[in-house]
Amino acid sequence: MAQGAFSKGQTPEDLKIDLLKKTHLFEDLSPQELREVAKYIQVRNYMKGEYIFFEEEAEPGIFILVEGLVKLIKETSDGRSIIVRLVFPGEVFGWIEWGKSVPKFKYTAMAALPSTILYISNKYFINLAIKYPAIAIKLTCDATHNLLQTYEVLKSIASGKVEERIAKLLLELAEKAGEKKDGRIIIRLPLTRQDIAEMTGTTVETTIRVMSKWKKQGIINTERGYIEIIDKKALEKLVV
Amino acid sequence: MAQGAFSKGQTPEDLKIDLLKKTHLFEDLSPQELREVAKYIQVRNYMKGEYIFFEEEAEPGIFILVEGLVKLIKETSDGRSIIVRLVFPGEVFGWIEWGKSVPKFKYTAMAALPSTILYISNKYFINLAIKYPAIAIKLTCDATHNLLQTYEVLKSIASGKVEERIAKLLLELAEKAGEKKDGRIIIRLPLTRQDIAEMTGTTVETTIRVMSKWKKQGIINTERGYIEIIDKKALEKLVV
Repeated sequence: MAQGAFSKGQTPEDLKIDLLKKTHLFEDLSPQELREVAKYIQVRNYMKGEYIFFEEEAEPGIFILVEGLVKLIKETSDGRSIIVRLVFPGEVFGWIEWGKSVPKFKYTAMAALPSTILYISNKYFINLAIKYPAIAIKLTCDATHNLLQTYEVLKSIASGKVEERIAKLLLELAEKAGEKKDGRIIIRLPLTRQDIAEMTGTTVETTIRVMSKWKKQGIINTERGYIEIIDKKALEKLVV
Repeated sequence: MAQGAFSKGQTPEDLKIDLLKKTHLFEDLSPQELREVAKYIQVRNYMKGEYIFFEEEAEPGIFILVEGLVKLIKETSDGRSIIVRLVFPGEVFGWIEWGKSVPKFKYTAMAALPSTILYISNKYFINLAIKYPAIAIKLTCDATHNLLQTYEVLKSIASGKVEERIAKLLLELAEKAGEKKDGRIIIRLPLTRQDIAEMTGTTVETTIRVMSKWKKQGIINTERGYIEIIDKKALEKLVV
């Protein structure tokens, strides 16, 4: 189904409910509850390269990626970008506020592929979570797991071993977005060397050097628009 | 009040309720609700240097630091430690699991000062959160804010500017644990140069070099057991 389009006889509300059912936050709700929840949810479609929000103007709220790929980006003081996280379909980003709690730090979100997103404002999310506590508990699980994952990235970057970081990233991408084919894993994502550098806290030059070496060694193969992992074990050996 | 001790006429249950009232997760509950919640909560006391849990054996559950200081640590592949977060009184650490959700990545937690902690197991937390959704919502806020803060650390480490990272850390510590006195800020924390290196992803040698330079320039003063910020503006200029 094309994004934003809906099949014959399907109302915009039906489409919204179909999308909600696909998310793990809402999958346990009854059809009647989904119809109720749908009132609070906006469906938003973004083109590849379109910004979802900017760091300075980001508002609290919850975004669920249904289809596509989203980059969460921070700018460093010297004007470089750091991709702090790639968001895959089914995953949640954003943050919520309750009472006096106001986060000091934010990020910019950009659609790296044409993306369909469900958006719930902070106020509506709080209402929903009070009515359906399981939603708040699931979101807490998500948030604490993302935190653990980010500590892992932090450790990886602080360790200073560039090859380990890039190998770890490729293995993660393979797990989240890889297609297995003839013992190889194909990662079809629009990631440039620049993106990989920004996700591993290194330079483009170093990323090109490391990946070219692996290509020569027959560990990976790269073409425009995809990366193929030929020898997964060789990458795993670099990550302890 | 000494840790673990309770005043005359106060039962262990009263002590637990007193500690619960101090936490922002439970502050809104009525006295009767607090008495109910107290049944699910363990009070744990740790000595300075004692491990709360190790990365390999960490179980899901929620830990609320009431008094003291906790380091969350990850080991790198080359045997170094990275302090991914310092936990201050009132803050929460740990993670929860719901249904099939199982986190792959964990950390080690150590008491950096004598510490009093409230512990809720994963199972009891889920029960509590279903009964009192506000608790789950507050924890979600905490977790998403911690995530934003960790992205900030990630950006800082990936930016490669060591002086900026150390300045940022000192300013954060000043905000969370600083005492103002005669226009100076005193940070009374048992942090060694090694700890500061582990929190900024740099070496002890570099940390010593940077902090000695600042000491000579009259920006900071350091003695065993505390760091004093004399010229806050000079540190702020290093952080953009």
